Amino acid sequence: MREVYVAGIGITSFTRLEYPLVEIAAYPAMMALKESGLRKIDHLYAANMGGGRINGQTGLASAVVDNLGLTPAGAETIENGPASGASALKEGFMAVASGMHDVVLVTGAERMRAVNNLEATDFVATLTHPYAEYIYGVTLPSLAGMFTRLHMDRYKVTPRHLAMVAVKNHGNAMFNPFAHLHQPITLEGILDSEDAATNNPVVADPLRFFDCCPVSDGAACLILSTAEVARKTGKPMVRLSGVGQATDTLCVHERDNPLELPAVRGAAAQSLKMAGKKPSDVDVAELHDAFTILEIVESEECGFFKKGEGHLALAKGETGLKGRLPINTSGGLKAKGHPVGATGVGQAHEIVLQLRGEAGERQVKGAKTGFTVNFGGFGNNVVSLCFTREK
Amino acid sequence: MREVYVAGIGITSFTRLEYPLVEIAAYPAMMALKESGLRKIDHLYAANMGGGRINGQTGLASAVVDNLGLTPAGAETIENGPASGASALKEGFMAVASGMHDVVLVTGAERMRAVNNLEATDFVATLTHPYAEYIYGVTLPSLAGMFTRLHMDRYKVTPRHLAMVAVKNHGNAMFNPFAHLHQPITLEGILDSEDAATNNPVVADPLRFFDCCPVSDGAACLILSTAEVARKTGKPMVRLSGVGQATDTLCVHERDNPLELPAVRGAAAQSLKMAGKKPSDVDVAELHDAFTILEIVESEECGFFKKGEGHLALAKGETGLKGRLPINTSGGLKAKGHPVGATGVGQAHEIVLQLRGEAGERQVKGAKTGFTVNFGGFGNNVVSLCFTREK
Repeated sequence: MREVYVAGIGITSFTRLEYPLVEIAAYPAMMALKESGLRKIDHLYAANMGGGRINGQTGLASAVVDNLGLTPAGAETIENGPASGASALKEGFMAVASGMHDVVLVTGAERMRAVNNLEATDFVATLTHPYAEYIYGVTLPSLAGMFTRLHMDRYKVTPRHLAMVAVKNHGNAMFNPFAHLHQPITLEGILDSEDAATNNPVVADPLRFFDCCPVSDGAACLILSTAEVARKTGKPMVRLSGVGQATDTLCVHERDNPLELPAVRGAAAQSLKMAGKKPSDVDVAELHDAFTILEIVESEECGFFKKGEGHLALAKGETGLKGRLPINTSGGLKAKGHPVGATGVGQAHEIVLQLRGEAGERQVKGAKTGFTVNFGGFGNNVVSLCFTREK
Repeated sequence: MREVYVAGIGITSFTRLEYPLVEIAAYPAMMALKESGLRKIDHLYAANMGGGRINGQTGLASAVVDNLGLTPAGAETIENGPASGASALKEGFMAVASGMHDVVLVTGAERMRAVNNLEATDFVATLTHPYAEYIYGVTLPSLAGMFTRLHMDRYKVTPRHLAMVAVKNHGNAMFNPFAHLHQPITLEGILDSEDAATNNPVVADPLRFFDCCPVSDGAACLILSTAEVARKTGKPMVRLSGVGQATDTLCVHERDNPLELPAVRGAAAQSLKMAGKKPSDVDVAELHDAFTILEIVESEECGFFKKGEGHLALAKGETGLKGRLPINTSGGLKAKGHPVGATGVGQAHEIVLQLRGEAGERQVKGAKTGFTVNFGGFGNNVVSLCFTREK
């Protein structure tokens, strides 16, 4: 297979965006095309989950390729729930690696705030099992709440550990101009003060408001290409060096051990193996912290920390901006935002910035190996990507 | 790139199916797995357009891979409007050709009759331009009606030619046990008799009821693999030898010449070129006859007949079961049915049957090269596949 490089990137603010979905998806693609200097592409993938359901827009990829004036390039929409973005990057990887195409544009986009929060939560819940979960009222926050309770009981994760994830990621987001929440929070404000219960009410016990990501609109884009095309852009060479993916039972209650996320473990191991890296080689990681507990558990399943010790590493500051392995320097889903179809591409965007040395105040010095986990469903379809800075 | 073969196929009846979408998608996959003898796959693609909008089911691919017990294989849903099926086969082709995977299962499924015909028509119209077409009430039948009128004016296509497509394809469907409409029709009944206007009322002038495909539920599956895996199945070796894709402006009114379908021309030329074939090499073709006019015009754009002469070839019987180039031996979208996400895979299913010599009473004798056109939007994203019978 041919090596695959990043030839250009773009991103919108993750926030409320009052534009049609197709224009949201096209915007970061224009940034990426401008940055790369490319005027033509061979293929386009659009990652999106809710166009048909909440925006009245199917055939999004066809609309975007037209909007950008990039016809007759082929185009598809890739949907894998909240992991649609990384799945689309994986398709782009294969298209270049196989020799089918030299330049593939991948844009991830979602416009979730076109509906209210209740409808948005219901929309995301349509990825659960239709007649063993969904019809009983299961939502993603409720699954995450139960998952959190099990980890509290088994591994002594406390509400303070969860809040530490939120405080860290909100802090990182202050340095990211494209983040949804520019709202610094403290343990005092969301946990210890008299007003804490009011500031930070229960959403799905034991998860509170600041344990959950916001509902965001937004889009992000990567152009993937051969080394030859990427070199001409004059940007530092960042290679998409590993892709991994694994699925698990759709229903959480069917898993042998509901405390584990074997699909994260499998996907992460695959992407690191393809890249020829070990967990200890990773300099910066974007993990799928739709709920605070997930950042902790994923950091264990990826092999960064031992099982049941992720929260201890967090408490020691190892995952902070100045720590041994900074996690979610962008602010993560927690504070950067989570426009579901865009999230996986947004994670990759952050890693490319870091490996190029363009991450400004949140730059991880000398980062050479970056890594992402994008989580579809409740851990039932996970895609992991590894990026490496090359000469 | 590695060569890609068909290791197994399956299909449901195209009809009204009172099952959840995930089970509809899984059913032909079980048939294909059984036929192939394979118990494991490396990856799964589900082609679907309306799960989120009309069935409350996102993350379909994740649900199907779980339903089939095929975890931890990765999975994505591929959406490209009514060309989702061929797009998913193209992704499967790349996955095997690139060396990423040896065995990839592609299932296309749609459950459109979960909603009424008005809602189904509206659902399909969500692939049109959101604020230049859709909001003005444009639907696919209305676009096809205008397109037909232009061809009548320019090339002397008559209502009789259109009806001939319907009569031919309803006739072919009589030999296909999985077809939606087992309803033989005659020119007398739908065009010439006193009751014709009642039997065959106007839908979108000049298109009548029997010029339009039905709204169908259904699913079809192909397992794609390396030659080595396919050889072990003991079935005749059918190779997916060519894939092509091209896009065009989303809005029909922005095209230089609204009588032409350059995306069909581009996609068809690419797939034939990759397969090393000429139009005259094709022994059997499935074209995207969602409306009767489309079979005629596509047969020209693919290079089977000269521009403006497709209806003349049809009238001479050249595209009939015993003709020079049988088109839509399955019954086509017109009579086999058009469950949008399934259609492209269903077309490929028919071609594989024909190249294997398993098409029963509708078998095209000695067919060695088969070809499909799957049409997303109104000709704005077209995927073409070429299959060849190998030793």
